[in-house]
Formats: sequence, structure tokens, C-alpha cells
Amino acid sequence: MNPLLIQVINPNTTLAMTETIGCAARAAAAPGTEILAVSPSQGVPSIEGHADEAIAAIGVLEQVRRGREQGVQGHVIACFGDPGLLAARELASGPVVGIAEAAMHLATMVATRFSIVTTLPRTVIIARHLLQQYGFSHHCAALHAIDMPVLALEDGSGQAQELVRRRCLQAKREDGSGAIVLGCGGMAALAAELTHELGMPVIDGVGAAVKMVESLVALGLGTSKYGDLAFPREKKISGAFQHLN
Amino acid sequence: MNPLLIQVINPNTTLAMTETIGCAARAAAAPGTEILAVSPSQGVPSIEGHADEAIAAIGVLEQVRRGREQGVQGHVIACFGDPGLLAARELASGPVVGIAEAAMHLATMVATRFSIVTTLPRTVIIARHLLQQYGFSHHCAALHAIDMPVLALEDGSGQAQELVRRRCLQAKREDGSGAIVLGCGGMAALAAELTHELGMPVIDGVGAAVKMVESLVALGLGTSKYGDLAFPREKKISGAFQHLN
Amino acid sequence: MNPLLIQVINPNTTLAMTETIGCAARAAAAPGTEILAVSPSQGVPSIEGHADEAIAAIGVLEQVRRGREQGVQGHVIACFGDPGLLAARELASGPVVGIAEAAMHLATMVATRFSIVTTLPRTVIIARHLLQQYGFSHHCAALHAIDMPVLALEDGSGQAQELVRRRCLQAKREDGSGAIVLGCGGMAALAAELTHELGMPVIDGVGAAVKMVESLVALGLGTSKYGDLAFPREKKISGAFQHLN
Amino acid sequence: MNPLLIQVINPNTTLAMTETIGCAARAAAAPGTEILAVSPSQGVPSIEGHADEAIAAIGVLEQVRRGREQGVQGHVIACFGDPGLLAARELASGPVVGIAEAAMHLATMVATRFSIVTTLPRTVIIARHLLQQYGFSHHCAALHAIDMPVLALEDGSGQAQELVRRRCLQAKREDGSGAIVLGCGGMAALAAELTHELGMPVIDGVGAAVKMVESLVALGLGTSKYGDLAFPREKKISGAFQHLN
Amino acid sequence: MNPLLIQVINPNTTLAMTETIGCAARAAAAPGTEILAVSPSQGVPSIEGHADEAIAAIGVLEQVRRGREQGVQGHVIACFGDPGLLAARELASGPVVGIAEAAMHLATMVATRFSIVTTLPRTVIIARHLLQQYGFSHHCAALHAIDMPVLALEDGSGQAQELVRRRCLQAKREDGSGAIVLGCGGMAALAAELTHELGMPVIDGVGAAVKMVESLVALGLGTSKYGDLAFPREKKISGAFQHLN
Amino acid sequence: MNPLLIQVINPNTTLAMTETIGCAARAAAAPGTEILAVSPSQGVPSIEGHADEAIAAIGVLEQVRRGREQGVQGHVIACFGDPGLLAARELASGPVVGIAEAAMHLATMVATRFSIVTTLPRTVIIARHLLQQYGFSHHCAALHAIDMPVLALEDGSGQAQELVRRRCLQAKREDGSGAIVLGCGGMAALAAELTHELGMPVIDGVGAAVKMVESLVALGLGTSKYGDLAFPREKKISGAFQHLN
Repeated sequence: MNPLLIQVINPNTTLAMTETIGCAARAAAAPGTEILAVSPSQGVPSIEGHADEAIAAIGVLEQVRRGREQGVQGHVIACFGDPGLLAARELASGPVVGIAEAAMHLATMVATRFSIVTTLPRTVIIARHLLQQYGFSHHCAALHAIDMPVLALEDGSGQAQELVRRRCLQAKREDGSGAIVLGCGGMAALAAELTHELGMPVIDGVGAAVKMVESLVALGLGTSKYGDLAFPREKKISGAFQHLN
Repeated sequence: MNPLLIQVINPNTTLAMTETIGCAARAAAAPGTEILAVSPSQGVPSIEGHADEAIAAIGVLEQVRRGREQGVQGHVIACFGDPGLLAARELASGPVVGIAEAAMHLATMVATRFSIVTTLPRTVIIARHLLQQYGFSHHCAALHAIDMPVLALEDGSGQAQELVRRRCLQAKREDGSGAIVLGCGGMAALAAELTHELGMPVIDGVGAAVKMVESLVALGLGTSKYGDLAFPREKKISGAFQHLN
Repeated sequence: MNPLLIQVINPNTTLAMTETIGCAARAAAAPGTEILAVSPSQGVPSIEGHADEAIAAIGVLEQVRRGREQGVQGHVIACFGDPGLLAARELASGPVVGIAEAAMHLATMVATRFSIVTTLPRTVIIARHLLQQYGFSHHCAALHAIDMPVLALEDGSGQAQELVRRRCLQAKREDGSGAIVLGCGGMAALAAELTHELGMPVIDGVGAAVKMVESLVALGLGTSKYGDLAFPREKKISGAFQHLN
Repeated sequence: MNPLLIQVINPNTTLAMTETIGCAARAAAAPGTEILAVSPSQGVPSIEGHADEAIAAIGVLEQVRRGREQGVQGHVIACFGDPGLLAARELASGPVVGIAEAAMHLATMVATRFSIVTTLPRTVIIARHLLQQYGFSHHCAALHAIDMPVLALEDGSGQAQELVRRRCLQAKREDGSGAIVLGCGGMAALAAELTHELGMPVIDGVGAAVKMVESLVALGLGTSKYGDLAFPREKKISGAFQHLN
Repeated sequence: MNPLLIQVINPNTTLAMTETIGCAARAAAAPGTEILAVSPSQGVPSIEGHADEAIAAIGVLEQVRRGREQGVQGHVIACFGDPGLLAARELASGPVVGIAEAAMHLATMVATRFSIVTTLPRTVIIARHLLQQYGFSHHCAALHAIDMPVLALEDGSGQAQELVRRRCLQAKREDGSGAIVLGCGGMAALAAELTHELGMPVIDGVGAAVKMVESLVALGLGTSKYGDLAFPREKKISGAFQHLN
Repeated sequence: MNPLLIQVINPNTTLAMTETIGCAARAAAAPGTEILAVSPSQGVPSIEGHADEAIAAIGVLEQVRRGREQGVQGHVIACFGDPGLLAARELASGPVVGIAEAAMHLATMVATRFSIVTTLPRTVIIARHLLQQYGFSHHCAALHAIDMPVLALEDGSGQAQELVRRRCLQAKREDGSGAIVLGCGGMAALAAELTHELGMPVIDGVGAAVKMVESLVALGLGTSKYGDLAFPREKKISGAFQHLN
């Protein structure tokens, strides 16, 4: 059996984070799965708002296109805002899964309500909109932000990680929820340890999304090419976006 | 590596259907997964309403308890109403996934909206309530019933299967949805072929639920035992339910 | 005029609670109404979670069937989770009303928003799901749990009752709601006194449900036997559930 | 025991309709209940839109005030738009129940979904808004209008009644609902016969509301005077509204 | 070009407040717009509940009718509960805009979520219902009441204004919202200054509604006279309401 | 008084469409408003799906940045999907209004429910998501697609325009709505004529958005720079996106 090749796209340009995410993806992958961790050659070093997301979405599209040329069978968008998710699905034939989406879906299968712990307060609205779009507004008990930028998770000090830990403990005490969703791809490495320390599921979306893609491929399910996720209509794309043709 | 043992519970007492479901589960299972397809020794031969579901839920609880004794690591409830799902989660430490739930979750990852094709009109309300509880009311474009009882799928005539096929074709033409969810465990065998014929994802919940359980176990995630899915409070259960103590 | 015979089902097996509930039902009943307070011969002594509810639902079904044989004209399910409500409706021709449902409906007629005071934190999710299913999520300002098991209401110490009282006072001060719904059949005796002490409606579901059944019967309205609450399709029910045939 | 005195307010000025409504109320009332059927001395002869409703609301307030002076213990607003409902609750200490509200609440207790049959298409939006406010949007399968003015129900020809009947039959065939709510006080007399003919609950709000008021009074529950339904703040009301002081 | 004549209706009878509102309207109006600030000759001096609103709605209808005779091209209802809004739209051919509505709409265009600061706690429910009806429940982060009657804003002491200011500051600190909506026509004069002091949009509905009416008229859009906002059906209105014929 | 300078961004690269949109904007603009109609130098010639939207969003951001340098005081995003709306708001200090948003908001002020007529079936899901995000799902009676690509509106044949006209007539007959929203910037020129022919408001978003920006600027309201729409955090943007720094 040929290995299953899954492309895990870090939508920002920080390679250390691509590494973190790649590790988490590999740790979650099944024996026969190969992880191709990539990031766009240009864009933003971290995604902390709507404009960052808009830029990152282009990087995601480029990578999805490239991934298809390389024969990957599925794609993970490894940023908690799931930037460019529906656009990427139009370009892909295999499944495309976002890490926010994957973590939220799985959270509803192990608990009746979950909490989210993310980085900056300004990204909370992005999570809120995703909850609404995916149908999980009523399943989320509370959203927390540690008020640190995304790249603080990569500064080696462990300070951001410690804040995440404390917020998770606080969420456990106060929210009345049964699981916690980690709201940033850069937190992926913390899930197992926190699950153990808290005694409740703490869910990382990177691993979750890898499993979702593996599952969909195994079931013979790709992105629907019938209806509104069909390949984009052919048209002349110009300028810096030509390669998306 | 020890194999992963997943218990697939057909909540009704019709062994032919347990077989159908077991086959679909095994077809979807990863190489290292072993499927234990079971059904309750007593209960209803098919589940076609709320009272049938209430009876079936007890069978599900019995099997979950037995499964834990047998060392299974996860459980699938293989009836489209997901009978006893939250109750079963209280009894389990590993993940418990219903086939309606699993199919609906995956459908939202491959299409923006999906249709459901089920058996009897009277079970449509059960699917409707699940859509609402899971958060997917806005993701479901339409619900269809072929107006045949569940066991017609097991009568060997193929007539029910043909009606399912026609309804799927009709749903494709009329609903404006990008995927179809098969609304009965007994339809599991049809998914692959219909996916091929229709050229759009047709999703069987049995396979989907097996993959969800595999995914959760691989990620080290079981049912949250913190909060409202904790093991039931100890109490003296009497009569026919003593074995649930 | 023959008396109206209403069956009030305590879905747990604690006879003291059946008594409490029977008293509350009789206190609320109209002159021409006779209350038949019953409880299942087997099951759980208290209902404090989803598994307890699943077991209790079977007891409810048995009693509904027995009640029909005895000629009762309507049924009350006297546990705040309304266990087995839709299943019971399938078995009944007269009306079946749950006490959570009844209390919530009436609360919306005397106040714009209400609070709920229940027993254990783990049952809050059950109330939440009922609010969503019945359509009252936006009418409920807050849910409170006194963090005592159900049977503490029957231990004679009055401690649980005092905690209920304090929570009601707190709810009045903090929630901005105009009425309080008591979230357990065992609290039925407290409603009148608390209504008086708090100077705002404190609603017990047992009395409320009795009045709803009386009202429906008087209006000539039973459970709809057209559509998805029709009597269950005939099938061979086996084992411990045979008597539900 | 003193009789319970319930004021049934026809918010329009058509006395024939007050009569129809009074009859339906009396038919539904318990032995010890006395019905005081009233209508405003000035206002609109029928209520078929938002402006009619605004005018009718004043008549409702006048009557509620008068009713309190006369010692009535509860009030029914007998127009399907429930005009002035929350305002009337502010003025009353006993319960105030609208007929749309009452019929919708009871419908959800006898069927999983209901249909509404009303008079003019332009009043459908009023019913829609009530469904949303009361929380029943998801419980209503369809809204139908016979496209006849309200007073056609009082012209003696029976034509409007026949159209109602036909629409009910159509609703039964097409909507997949288990009960029908009659969407006009003037249709009150039809409920029993249609329930019989259709073999499913057809619900008139007038009777339903009378039973709700009886129930609330029997339970010792009046409109909450704590919070936002407290009596209006004292202020100098001028002109034609002075009597509302 | 003829000036655009907009009628700004203060639905209460306090002339000082009509003045305040008229000033705010004129400050917001475009060069070619003339503001006709009016109030009903009879009614309530302030609107602080549902009954006050019902009375005020009649005054609104009278003024809309009078405004049409005077040739105004659009109408503003300058009370935060938007009393009589849909009824007024039936009577008008030009646009009718409520100040709550206008402020909420604009708030969603400058911030992802907004807070509301209003006068009395008992009016919070009115704002809540409007949020639900207009579709903005999820866009409102919090509702605050200063717990002062409406006319305290007109007593010259500035105390109410100071409380509004403090609540706005508190809302900025605590709510996680990006804009504040002032919940009373009498607060109109505060918006500009508070916007400046807080460094975030503080929105007054009076100015907002004037701009909405100007916009609609400029676009050639009046109230739809097709469908359920068509002119009321002709009927004999009696008594004090005759002039609404 | 200096003129108000509003930038109207056609997010696609088809200059004929920029022209159409610019004309509609100028026709709606107040005397003192100057319209700067622009389109990105690179991107997609039409926007007919999620991937097109993602590309167009970058063009919108570039133009917003450029517009700020040119001193424009507000921005319109003239594509019915409102691509890049929240991202653009982060970059802007003045108001940014999308044409879908503007048309939908105004539609709710002139009718209780509206219909949408758009181009391709595959863009219907985009409108659906906007309705949900903006809060208008319940205000939209139906969505229609003429099944023609966007640029058919610019081919000079008038065929697409005729299909729009027919769909509007059909919507009027069948939907029970009181207004129609035109679902494409390229349909802007049709609104006035169709409003006249249909006798009900047919709303073009381009004009609507211009009026919203004028209104916000006149009220001194810009995009909130407090909270989650604050300017993006400073970071090194690389490659083709450097100019967005």
C-alpha cells in the first residue's frame, strides 16, 4: 500500500512554527501516513487578525495548488482561524480540513460543552465567527485569550505556554465545560501534557485535522466537486496571482 | 502494537443487520483495528421511532458495559438516531460515537450543505432533533424518506436499496446540496457505489463513526470524565437493569 | 361527570419521592381530577444523569402502558429531565406532559425571562438541552445548581431545601429574571412558600404538568396519532421489554 | 368556593365576534369558571395588520384596567396576534394569556411540529414574529392563509369556514406536521369538528388560553410583578389615554 | 432642489425632549434636509415600559398620518424601543426608521460587537426583543442600565449624563465590544463627546435614523407597499381613533 | 466645505464593471460627495466563488491602503460577497461598507422580508453565509440565481438583465417578500427601473453602500479602532504582499 501523503499547511511564514506543527502532525499520523509540512514563501510571520488571514489565505491557495501537483491526497490548514478554508476546498479534490474546525468537531464528541484558549483578544472574534459558521456556538462555554502574540509561543521562554496552562486550569474551574480546545497551531505540543495534568480532554487541532483527513481519504471521501465547492470557473487571473490559474 | 478494539453496537436485535454493519465497519477500519460487532440480546428488531429508541438505548448501555469488560477502547452506536449516545458516554471511558453524528460532521467537511435520505417519514423528526442538538440545522438542505421500514433493507429484494438510490438522485437534482448522508445503518453498504454513481460524496455513518473512534483513540482522547459526562453516580439499580450497576 | 384520572409517573423508584410528587399533584388538581401517583417497580432510585434517564425512560413507558390499561386519560412525567417524553407520547393516546416542559411553558407566560434552580451541576446540561428543544433558550436567564444529590431533598434534614431557598434569593438578586423554575420533582412542595417569600412566581413543574394535562383533556386534545407520534409500528419486542409490546 | 372570573377580551369592536369568542371560551371553561367576554367601545372592527394591532392594544389595556376594577382574576387576549400582550401584563396582577401563545404552547405538547392556518396573507408576518418571540420557529412546519378578511368568518355564508377546512386538509397532506393551530379568534368554533374530521389535533387558541389562565390561577401564579413586568411607573398620562392612568 | 422634509417624532409628550431630539436631528441632517420635530398632543411624558410603548405607538401613528398630510418624505421614530414601527410603516409611503434600529445597524458596520447603555433596567427587555427581531442578538456583547428614569436626562443636573458616561467607560473596559449604542433618544447630545472621550464609536440613534431616511429617500426607496406593509385595509375606525381612518 | 471623497472598490479587474459601479455610485452620491471608482491592477476578472473572493480580498486591501494615502474618507467594497470586509476594516480608519451588507440592511427597513436575485448558483452559499453573519437569515425569504456568469451582465446583449428581470417578477409572485436585493455589483443599473416596474423596492447595494458611508462620515463615525478591528499589529509582511505593510 502506498503511503497516504497529507499536506499540512502552516499559513504563516515562520518556519519554527511550521516545524512545531509538522511535529504535532507526525505524532498524530497513522503508520502509513506521510506528512508534508509546508508554509508559503511569502506572507505574514503570524496571523493575528482579519488582514493577516486574508494574506495567509493566498498562501494557503498556493500551497494547495502545489500540493495537488505533488500528489498529496489531503490538506490541513494549520491556523486556528481556518483561513481560506472554503477557497482551498474549491481548489482541492481531496479533503481540506482546518484545525479549528477539526478540534471543535472532536470536542463535541467527548464533552457536551468545551472552552477555547487562544492567544490575543483580537482573535477571539475570529473563533466566534467560526463557531457560528460551523454550528457550535451553543457548544462553546467560554473563550479565553492569554493576551500574548502568537510568536511568543516560539520565543523559547515557555512563558506563553505557562499562561496557556493557567488559563486552561481556570477554564476547568469556572466554565462548566468538559473539554478545552487549544486556539492556536503553535500550542499543538501542549495538548497531551495538559490533557494529563487537567484530567480532561485538551484538544489540539493539528493532530485532530490530520486524523480527519486520514479518515476522509480512507472512506473514499474528497471535497465535493458537485455544487458550490466545484473547481473555480476558468478565468484569466492576473499579476501576482497568475500561478493560481 | 496491540490492535485497537472497537465495539460496533447495532442497537437492534436483527442479526442480519449486525452483519451488514459489521462488514461496513471492517471495510472502513484501519489495518490495526479490530471490529467487534454486537447487538443486544433483547430489545427491538428495528428502530423506527422514539419508543424503539428508548428500548434500544438500554441495549446500548448493556453492550457498552460489556464492551468495557472486554477491553474495547471505543464504541460506535450504529443506528441513525444515535440512541443512548450521552448515556453511553457516561458509562464509557473511551470515545463513543454515533453514526448520525459522525456522518453529519464529515459531511460538513466536504460540502457546504448536505441532504439526508432515511427510511420512514416518522424518523425524520429524530434526524431533525439531532441536527439541532449537534448544531447542523443550517447545514442540512433537505431530509428525504423512502417510506419503507428499516428491515426492508434486509429483505434481499433490493427494492429499498433502489428507492434509496432514486432519492439520492432526486436530492442531487433538487436540493442544492453537495453531499448526501445515508440515514440508516442498514444502508451502509450503498455509500461507495452511490458516491461513484452520483459523482458526489454519499456518506455512511458506520464507516464514518469507526474512523472517528480510531481518530480519538489515536489522539489519546476519550470521553471527558470531568463534568456532566462523568461516570454515573453510584446508586442501587434494581430489577432488569441491575446488570447496569 | 366521571372524574378525570391522571397518572403521575415518578420515573425513579424512591417511594418517598412518589409521595411528595403525588401530594403536589393532588394539591394542584381540579376538584374532578383523580391523581394516580406511580413509580416503576425497577430502575434507579434517583435520576441524576443521562444513563439514569435512559433507565427511567423504560419505567415511564411501562407505566404509560399500564396507565392506558387502567383507563387513565393523561400522563405526567414527574422528573425534570422529562425522560422518555416523546417515546411515551408514541405509546399514549391521551396527552403526556413532562414537568420541565410544563414549568418552562408557564414561566414564559408570567415573566419575560426565568431562572432555573436544580440539584446537581451535572444535570444542568439536561435542562439546557430541553430549553433548546422546547425553544426557550432565550427565555432562560440563568441555571443554578445547589450541588446536592436529588435524594438529599428526601433526607428530612431540610438542608437541601434551605439551599434551594438561598439559590432562589440569589437568582432574584442577580439574574434579572422575573420567575424561577424549580428544577426537580422533589422540590414540588417548596413552590408556594417560595413564591410568597420571594414575591415572584416560583414554579413547580408537577402542579404545572397536572394543569396542562387537565387543560388538554378538557379541550379534547390528546397526543397526535397522525405523523411521527403515531403508535409504534408493531414489532416483536423481546426479553425484558416484552411487556412493552 | 367563589367562581373564577376570567375576562376574555376580543380586541376588535365587532360584537358578533365577541359572541363567537365568548361561546368558545365558555365551552372550554371549567365548571367553576365564569367568562366575561368584552370588547373595546372604540377601535377597529377587525385586526388585519400592524396598525390595527396598535389600535387594538389600547382597547386591550382599557379592558384589562376595567377588568381589574371588576375583580376578574385573569385575562385572555382573543386575537391571534396577541396585541398588547406584554403591555397588558404590566397592568395586570393576574395572568394574561394571548390566544396565539396558548395555542402554540399546547400544540408543542401534542405534536412535534404544527401548521398554522390564518386569514389574510399580510397577517402571516405577525404569526412569524410571534413564533420567533415565543421560541417556536422550529416547531412550526408551515403557515397558510385562506386569503379572506377576518370578518368573512362572520358573514354567515360559511365560505371562509370551508376554506379553512380545505386548508387544514391540505396542511395535513403536505406539511408533515402533527397538529394544526387555527390562526384567528373567529375560527374558534371550528376546532372540535376539524379535530374530528382530520383525525389530528386542530387547536383553537381561545379555549387554550382560558385553560392556561385557569391553570395559572389554580397554581397561585399571576404575572410577575418583580422585574420588567412590574406595574408601569406612575406618570401623568394625558388626553384620550387619561383613563389608563 | 426642494429640501427634503423629514419628520422626527418624539413619541412622548415631553417638549424638552422633543427639543433635544430635534437638535440632534438637525445636527445630523444634510444641508438640503429640513427637520420637523414633533410629538403627540396626548400620551405619556416618558416611555419606560411596554404599556407606555403601546400608548406612544398611537401618538406615532397620528403623527405619521399628519406628517404625510404635511408632505414629509420620511419619518423617524425617536424612542429607543421603536414603538409602533411596523404599524407606522403601514401608514407611510416614505421610509420610517426607528432610532434603536438605526443605531444598531450602523454599529454593526463599525465594530464586530457593540454594547448598549440605556436608562431603566425594565427597558432592557425591550432592547433585547429588538435585537432578536432585527437579527443582532449575536452582535450585542452586553446591555447596561444606569437605573435612572428617562426624564432624569432632562432635569438639568447632568447626573444622569454622568452615569451614562461612567457606564460607557465600564462597558469599554469589560465588554470586549468595539462600539456603544446609546439606548435613549434623550442621550442624543452625548454621542459626539463620548465618542471623543472613549476613543471608540458611541452611537446615537437619532442622528443615525435621520441619515437612514435621507439615504433611503435619495435612493428612491420608500416603505414597500407590496405585501405585509401595504396600507391598512380600509375599515371604520371608531372613537378616539377615528382620525386614524 | 471640502467634498467627501469615497473610494468605491470594484474588487475584480474588469474595467467595464468598475465603470458600471462607478456610475451607480455617482448617481447615488450626495452633491458634496466625490466618488473614486477603482479596481485592483491584478486579480480576477469576476468573482464567482470562494477562491475568487480570496484573491479579490487582497486587491481590496491594496486599494484601501492606497485610498487612505489618497485621503479618501470612506470605502465601499462593491462585490456582493463583501470580500475582505473585516480585513479592510482593520486597515481603514474611516468606514468600510460592503454592498451586500448595505443592501440587506436597507431592505430590512422597507420590508419585513426580502428576496435576493444573484448570478450563479454557486454564489448562493456566499450570500447565505453573509445573511447568517449579519443576522438576516430570518429576513430573507428566498435566494434566486439566474445561472449566468457575472460578466454576462457586461456583454452588451441584455440577456442577463432580462433574466434578472424575470427572476424578480417570479420572486414577487412566489416568495411572499416585500423587497428584492440585487445580488451583484454588475446589476446596479437595474435597480431604479425594476423598482418602478415591479412596484416594490428593488435594492442595489452600490448606491446603498455609498449612502451608508456618507451617513457614517457625517455622523463622525469611522471604523472602531478599539478592539478587534484595530489596525493590524505591525509585522514584516513579505513578498508580493510587502506593499500591505
